[in-house]
Amino acid sequence: MRIALDAMGGDHAPGPIVGGAMQALESDPELHVVLVGDQAQIDPLIQGQCETSRVSVLHCTQVVGMEDSPVEALRRKPDNSIARSWQLLGGGKVEGIVSAGNTGAMVAGGVFSRRFLKNVRRPGIGTVMPTKAGWCVMIDVGANTQPKAEHLYQYGVMGSIFARCILQVENPRIGLMNIGSEGDKGNSLAKETNGLFNASPLQKSFIGNVEGRDIHQGIADVVVCDGFVGNVVLKVCEGLYQFLMEKAAQEILAALKTERDLAKEALKLLASRYDYSEFGGAPLLGIDGVCIICHGSSGDRAIKNALLLAAKYVRLKLNDLIVHELEQAPAFVAG
Amino acid sequence: MRIALDAMGGDHAPGPIVGGAMQALESDPELHVVLVGDQAQIDPLIQGQCETSRVSVLHCTQVVGMEDSPVEALRRKPDNSIARSWQLLGGGKVEGIVSAGNTGAMVAGGVFSRRFLKNVRRPGIGTVMPTKAGWCVMIDVGANTQPKAEHLYQYGVMGSIFARCILQVENPRIGLMNIGSEGDKGNSLAKETNGLFNASPLQKSFIGNVEGRDIHQGIADVVVCDGFVGNVVLKVCEGLYQFLMEKAAQEILAALKTERDLAKEALKLLASRYDYSEFGGAPLLGIDGVCIICHGSSGDRAIKNALLLAAKYVRLKLNDLIVHELEQAPAFVAG
Repeated sequence: MRIALDAMGGDHAPGPIVGGAMQALESDPELHVVLVGDQAQIDPLIQGQCETSRVSVLHCTQVVGMEDSPVEALRRKPDNSIARSWQLLGGGKVEGIVSAGNTGAMVAGGVFSRRFLKNVRRPGIGTVMPTKAGWCVMIDVGANTQPKAEHLYQYGVMGSIFARCILQVENPRIGLMNIGSEGDKGNSLAKETNGLFNASPLQKSFIGNVEGRDIHQGIADVVVCDGFVGNVVLKVCEGLYQFLMEKAAQEILAALKTERDLAKEALKLLASRYDYSEFGGAPLLGIDGVCIICHGSSGDRAIKNALLLAAKYVRLKLNDLIVHELEQAPAFVAG
Repeated sequence: MRIALDAMGGDHAPGPIVGGAMQALESDPELHVVLVGDQAQIDPLIQGQCETSRVSVLHCTQVVGMEDSPVEALRRKPDNSIARSWQLLGGGKVEGIVSAGNTGAMVAGGVFSRRFLKNVRRPGIGTVMPTKAGWCVMIDVGANTQPKAEHLYQYGVMGSIFARCILQVENPRIGLMNIGSEGDKGNSLAKETNGLFNASPLQKSFIGNVEGRDIHQGIADVVVCDGFVGNVVLKVCEGLYQFLMEKAAQEILAALKTERDLAKEALKLLASRYDYSEFGGAPLLGIDGVCIICHGSSGDRAIKNALLLAAKYVRLKLNDLIVHELEQAPAFVAG
């Protein structure tokens, strides 16, 4: 099992990126990681490590910056680590790719390569969110900011398979992100999508519209949404989480006298429980191959978990399931 | 100063609704409240109260339920308290209306009445959100789920006046909710709106795109967004806030031994600090008159504050400022 890892992607690259790869190699003896990036920076990081026999380096000279315009950067910097990773996947040299670099460039690399699974119209990014009941997957969170109803339907199919295989939910409930529970609520995309799900083979799994406050309640296992809305929601959650945890820590620590350390520990535990690095990254679903997009601030733990997620995704043959499932619903994949 | 209050609207109506009115009357000696609703239920609640000389009742027999389809309910129940409140405003009998009832029906009542301020194309709901720096106003959060760029521009104008007069921000910074900071990011609506702001008289106040995580950072004083996105974001914040506060309380109280009561007090203080009832409700901006929409679960404190907000809005002549400001930007109001 070979996975390419963009060694240059992320706010702290390449140190913790390579570090995460080493940890993943230790915990998965079948894994081989291809580090894509500047050999001069990577080599010192892998020297003296235990698992170097299962590491190789694909040297490349350029990096897409976090603030670069994705499309322009891919064109202007042909030897960048993201494009090289996609080429490895395209050439069948690896089964998956992982990057904590520029999300837009990762998505654009996939869209340009047109390596979509059979019948998939547009790939979508699924991200795992904590809920009262455990976890749910929200899809799409930014790959497709002007989707059609049939794209959202396909996100329901793919998200549902992800929830079943990775989150281990036996019968995932699919909800459509909307602004009211009734079927006729929302903008025209939401109304059309609601109708599409209700007339589809997924009808029994479809619980209808869900609202913003339902995500963390754990009412749905799969929350389907427009990539614009999903991206805003994901970032709102990050921001509010950080804001509230800071405020809670301030207020509580100021109020306590002798048990501040206990409270600090409890807050740290809480933070780690809902840490995005638990799942390592977000899959770009619908691609022929596995593509995991990590948060820019990923540390070694996130990278390790992203690599293990990619390996699990390959082993469980999620893509075969997606292709099979989409074949069952031909009405929604034509055109 | 006469404000109509929908006595039947809200999860706990009419008890805390009438209770909130009594509190508002006590704190604002110029206020007169017209309670709109079932006289038989309202009368016992105002008997024996101090300020009854400044209360009157407009009896009506019907109520729009929280789950009713707004448009259908307004048609099927002509004698409902929301429609009667709008009629009071339309007839000049009151200067503002306040309701914690069905939000959709409140907005529909306003849109049907076509009582828009001069040059206003579509009213929008502005809601006040807590930030690290204080407060910001997010507009629109659900009145207009398929807006055009010029609607969003007008929301910037109106939100900015609200921030200046009510939140007391001298030079409000306007941000456009988007999925990246660069001007060419986002869906076609976001791109067009970004261009519109940059070519407008508000150009100097416009700080460009903001992302979901920026809201609570306090980077912008006015966050302009599509009503679909805004409504989802508002409810996501409610849900995540409740989820995190519950989890934080659980973890911390379980970890502490002797100082649990101190921690409980701190958490209660934190909750009250970011309580939506601080501002009472969200104004529907762009209406000729004042319309404040309260949360369904509003208690007496929220209702009191919503009535005081309505009175302040009238006194500060926010609508005159909106009309004046929109006249300065004729390019964006034509058509």
